[in-house]
Amino acid sequence: MVHNGIEYGIMQLIAETYDLLKRGLGRSDDEVQQIFEEWNQSEVQSFLVEITAQILQKTDEITGEHLVNVISDRARQKGTGKWTSQNAMDLQVPLPTVDMAVAMRDMSAYKDERLLAAQNLAGTTTKAGESGEWYEVENQLRHAFYFAMLTTYAQGLAQLRVASQAYNYELQLQDVVRIWRGGCIIRAACLETIRQAYATNPGLPNLLLDPTIGEELMQHQEDARTIVKLAVDTGIPIPAMMASLAYFDAYRSENLPTNLIMAQRDYFGAHTYERIDQTGTFHTEWD
Amino acid sequence: MVHNGIEYGIMQLIAETYDLLKRGLGRSDDEVQQIFEEWNQSEVQSFLVEITAQILQKTDEITGEHLVNVISDRARQKGTGKWTSQNAMDLQVPLPTVDMAVAMRDMSAYKDERLLAAQNLAGTTTKAGESGEWYEVENQLRHAFYFAMLTTYAQGLAQLRVASQAYNYELQLQDVVRIWRGGCIIRAACLETIRQAYATNPGLPNLLLDPTIGEELMQHQEDARTIVKLAVDTGIPIPAMMASLAYFDAYRSENLPTNLIMAQRDYFGAHTYERIDQTGTFHTEWD
Repeated sequence: MVHNGIEYGIMQLIAETYDLLKRGLGRSDDEVQQIFEEWNQSEVQSFLVEITAQILQKTDEITGEHLVNVISDRARQKGTGKWTSQNAMDLQVPLPTVDMAVAMRDMSAYKDERLLAAQNLAGTTTKAGESGEWYEVENQLRHAFYFAMLTTYAQGLAQLRVASQAYNYELQLQDVVRIWRGGCIIRAACLETIRQAYATNPGLPNLLLDPTIGEELMQHQEDARTIVKLAVDTGIPIPAMMASLAYFDAYRSENLPTNLIMAQRDYFGAHTYERIDQTGTFHTEWD
Repeated sequence: MVHNGIEYGIMQLIAETYDLLKRGLGRSDDEVQQIFEEWNQSEVQSFLVEITAQILQKTDEITGEHLVNVISDRARQKGTGKWTSQNAMDLQVPLPTVDMAVAMRDMSAYKDERLLAAQNLAGTTTKAGESGEWYEVENQLRHAFYFAMLTTYAQGLAQLRVASQAYNYELQLQDVVRIWRGGCIIRAACLETIRQAYATNPGLPNLLLDPTIGEELMQHQEDARTIVKLAVDTGIPIPAMMASLAYFDAYRSENLPTNLIMAQRDYFGAHTYERIDQTGTFHTEWD
């Protein structure tokens, strides 16, 4: 199930990348195809990137168009991504990239509403960068995708770790990753780095805490930030990429603003709160 | 339940705004308190903004500090936000802002991991704008919050509309909104505009399609984009704000890149796809 959740996440990230290249940056179908083909020789090498390059070069026998362009964007799903997100919520494990992948498949089904909205809701007027920056943008996009891909594995594996404790699975995550690397839909070159992280530290709470993966994320974060800003400027929805960046920024936050939320709950529902300097639960008459 | 899901979303949006003001822009506790107090006289007037201003001026009797600062950021929850997100996934209604609110409460509980990550994962080195821009940033932030607040109501009410059909509730959304406006945790000045939208068009599929609300969203979208970029630059996680913007951009997209996802599913699982020019389901031998 978690394999399929990660699969949903990476497929959504690829789709967002494709959308940003086509709609955001105005790349042609052939250019986008070539980009994914080149990417499959880089750090993002993976089954899903590989088949994306193959899909994008397929011609429709009926119309002679690129086949992908005549496929409907109303997504169907068997529900394993949904199941993964729902289970993560039950286990109280944050899984934001997969959550967004599920939400976007759901969004895609509202085709009639989206048609109406497209006619009535004008977007931003900012245009993407000029052609001179294209080569740089492509590298930044690849790094951003890699950054998000790593955080997606991190989220799914953190879920498996908690699930293993909750359900007494006694999973060895190193073995899980080795099996995935051996052959499955989410197999990818980076799974070797991920496997080594668990081989070095079988009790690793989260991949973001592995020094090698942490270093890769830190190196690529500026490109991830640049790409999110580019999507925001061009009005292309990339919620899974955004959620991956927010996951990184939240995880590395010693303090989150959830103290305010706990105060609000205590204000309106007397739900009590905990303090940073004493144990126990406390309640305040706020007004 | 959906009321509480919207409540989770708006509380998370307020927390993100607070975090961006404090950590991102370096505002003092007193400045932030004053900002929320002023905001409660504007278009974002609401119970949750009002109590936030009250919470931020409360002094801790033990330490003499602002009480909110001694409250632990490990969130607890009774599960109604989770339940709302899980049900939205069952109904295939996108609810990204609430999903992110749930994920961030879950994230907050990993305090020990976040402490480690804060020591090991350096963020961006970009600093927020200089003091001269403060007044403008505050207005942009208020507009961005209002933008996100409207999309949160839109998501929850879209869920209620689908739920009413699925479960034969025969809900009149105008009445639901009128009751919320009358008195509850998510009561807010903007619920009057929202009520009018359903009074004018009881079958409105989504608030984003109401002309008045659509106009407000279009007016404030540039500020929402500016604020997301500011958070990205300063490394402050605002996933709920990001998800609200992505919801707007996805909803107004006549074509989403989900056609690529359908092609991938057909490639690796022979799940078939639909075409834009013919009815029926199709399968391709891709490789």
